[in-house]
Amino acid sequence: MTPYIVILSTGSELTAGRSVDTNSGWIANQLFELGWKVKKIITLPDDPNLIFKELEALQSLAKEIPVLAIMTGGLGPTEDDYTLETVLKLTGKTSYAVEKAKIRLTKIYEARGKDYKDILPTVFRQTNVPEGCKTLDNSVGIAVGFIESLGENSYLVCMPGVPSEMTEMFKRRLVPELKKMYPRENLIQKTKWLWNIGESLFQNEFIEPNREVYFKETEWGVTANRGYIKCIFQSTNDVMLDTILKSLEKQYPDLISDDVFQYVHEQLLYEKWTISVVESCTGGLLGKKLTERAGSSAYFMGGFLTYSNEMKSNLLGIPKETIETFGAVSDEVAFAMVDGLCLKTGTDFGVSITGIAGPEGGSEEKPVGTVCIGLKEPNGKIKVHRYLFPGNRESIRENASNTALFLIYQSLKGKVV
Amino acid sequence: MTPYIVILSTGSELTAGRSVDTNSGWIANQLFELGWKVKKIITLPDDPNLIFKELEALQSLAKEIPVLAIMTGGLGPTEDDYTLETVLKLTGKTSYAVEKAKIRLTKIYEARGKDYKDILPTVFRQTNVPEGCKTLDNSVGIAVGFIESLGENSYLVCMPGVPSEMTEMFKRRLVPELKKMYPRENLIQKTKWLWNIGESLFQNEFIEPNREVYFKETEWGVTANRGYIKCIFQSTNDVMLDTILKSLEKQYPDLISDDVFQYVHEQLLYEKWTISVVESCTGGLLGKKLTERAGSSAYFMGGFLTYSNEMKSNLLGIPKETIETFGAVSDEVAFAMVDGLCLKTGTDFGVSITGIAGPEGGSEEKPVGTVCIGLKEPNGKIKVHRYLFPGNRESIRENASNTALFLIYQSLKGKVV
Repeated sequence: MTPYIVILSTGSELTAGRSVDTNSGWIANQLFELGWKVKKIITLPDDPNLIFKELEALQSLAKEIPVLAIMTGGLGPTEDDYTLETVLKLTGKTSYAVEKAKIRLTKIYEARGKDYKDILPTVFRQTNVPEGCKTLDNSVGIAVGFIESLGENSYLVCMPGVPSEMTEMFKRRLVPELKKMYPRENLIQKTKWLWNIGESLFQNEFIEPNREVYFKETEWGVTANRGYIKCIFQSTNDVMLDTILKSLEKQYPDLISDDVFQYVHEQLLYEKWTISVVESCTGGLLGKKLTERAGSSAYFMGGFLTYSNEMKSNLLGIPKETIETFGAVSDEVAFAMVDGLCLKTGTDFGVSITGIAGPEGGSEEKPVGTVCIGLKEPNGKIKVHRYLFPGNRESIRENASNTALFLIYQSLKGKVV
Repeated sequence: MTPYIVILSTGSELTAGRSVDTNSGWIANQLFELGWKVKKIITLPDDPNLIFKELEALQSLAKEIPVLAIMTGGLGPTEDDYTLETVLKLTGKTSYAVEKAKIRLTKIYEARGKDYKDILPTVFRQTNVPEGCKTLDNSVGIAVGFIESLGENSYLVCMPGVPSEMTEMFKRRLVPELKKMYPRENLIQKTKWLWNIGESLFQNEFIEPNREVYFKETEWGVTANRGYIKCIFQSTNDVMLDTILKSLEKQYPDLISDDVFQYVHEQLLYEKWTISVVESCTGGLLGKKLTERAGSSAYFMGGFLTYSNEMKSNLLGIPKETIETFGAVSDEVAFAMVDGLCLKTGTDFGVSITGIAGPEGGSEEKPVGTVCIGLKEPNGKIKVHRYLFPGNRESIRENASNTALFLIYQSLKGKVV
């Protein structure tokens, strides 16, 4: 049985566009990975009347079909938190305080050196849930989540809006309940990345010709990212998924990868290799990406930001003539940058990026989006790759730094780059 | 007259959580700045039945109250674009091709060296709108937007889902129409940033005590960001807004700022000052932020990424003993970093960042989140500031680089930093 799934977020900061609702997309994605499709995402302000009307509509829909409504927000301690009171009004129930949550709250206050009596009633309210509901423990924050019946095979799930609390509650508490509520076969998901190819070209080249053979019972999806697309395949048939991935690999041997951020991190740690970077147009973005993961200090040593030509000469000793002759964005300068970098840092890998991020600075020969990336491998070989990336300044910089990571990935995979 | 405003996005990539819907929040924010509050945001998959049902519900609501529905997506050339066909079904109208848009499309194809006859019918379909509607020209892409009547004082606005096309269409075409459709007094909005203060503290300290005096007819809102909150005030009374801002400035003289990214950019350009950076825990994030705006090459020269202690010594000549004695995250090392930096780069401003981004590496004396930021001003003075930032690794790095920009801002403002 597949329920009609609705995700409901509440928060006036969301409907005023002051905050972005990341919860709904995250939940939708988790549900997709479990094999469920969301029929509707709704965002409402912190207005008890609007929330009540929406829940009422869902309750009446649940008389016709199984409905799963997953709601976030409105369980906090402030005056604009209305979820519990609205649910009680809807069901005609009363609420009670969850003993375990009360004890937890008291302990948190004690640890902060505060007395039990200091806890405001509005704070205590967060430990309340409707009588007879299924509770969802909060192991990160205070507010308790709960599952309330909406009718036959229909449920209303209420979780806090704080992302760290909600995601933990979803994965640890809700998913096991969902699997009991709506039992089904295990769905397997596999993902590959393809570089410098568009969604529609991929669809024309790979999905359409294989629709009959592969995609009768396998779901597929694509998400576009800067420099790459993620291709997602879902099926209960593991053998079929492997066949599809092999076929994809065969069709795109030079464009395919796994998660390069994860792989580069793990492989540099495993091989005990070090890396340094020198960036011009990306201004530090590659260094930032290489240091996003905890533990990156084991391989990332540092490097240079040589945004101006002067810095390219002064910090790395690139002759002014080289820059004048070939231009700052050229294979020659990218080569000299990574060469000079590794002389100074002595790391196993070295990467240089120089390009025209725009909107100014393009020419007929080197339009905006032209980027040269130099890679020095542990064996000492240096090769420069030249690209023309699409989009605006931000997009070009993202493309350039992601593609640099793909080059490192390919080198680590032992592919000729 | 204030309509009941609903924003409706369509796209299966949104309800599967593969893409984040940035359009709805952007539109909500624009409407908020115009003084309108959104009652509901809805996201639907590319499913013509679900879209039709939703539009039908809005049409019937419009019989009771004025409704403004703003819809994005589903106007493209692919088989899962259903907006026009659904609107035609709803209104019982036929569609026609907008001549101007057809000519524009043909010219775009010709510019790409393609013939008129190469244009697929599905591509041409994007120039179609319902008969008798108000059209919204697309000056970025191809699909034409339109405004259809939903009833008395009620409208359905349809715009493309591509953000660059939608935002341009919204600002240039739709806003003038909205002002005609729902005339009202001009609302003025003023914004200030406050640093290292939470939303709730701000509310307790500034909003609550002034509720009667300032906020009877002035709307206020706060958005939390990394390192700062944005305080937004709206009123038709300009004098009142200035009074509020003065009071805010008086209460928080050391925490208040305008948009520091904008101000630092403009002021460095104006003063013809240069800047360089040396980053440890932020790994390049400050350099990336300083180069986000076109034209930043006039002031941003470059710098060093000294993630490892070895690089701090080798590239900047910081004695190993200094690092061993005081620790890599210390006032002394932050001082030596920015001092060494400016010796190498010779820029007017210099910034150093060294900190513990975590999750490992903290101690009782220097917990995770400890960050030292050194600033060298054009007069040669160097001062180091020490912070303890909250949150996870990403949050600490964002906080650190944003706060560095705030320090530059304060120095440019002539404040003692």
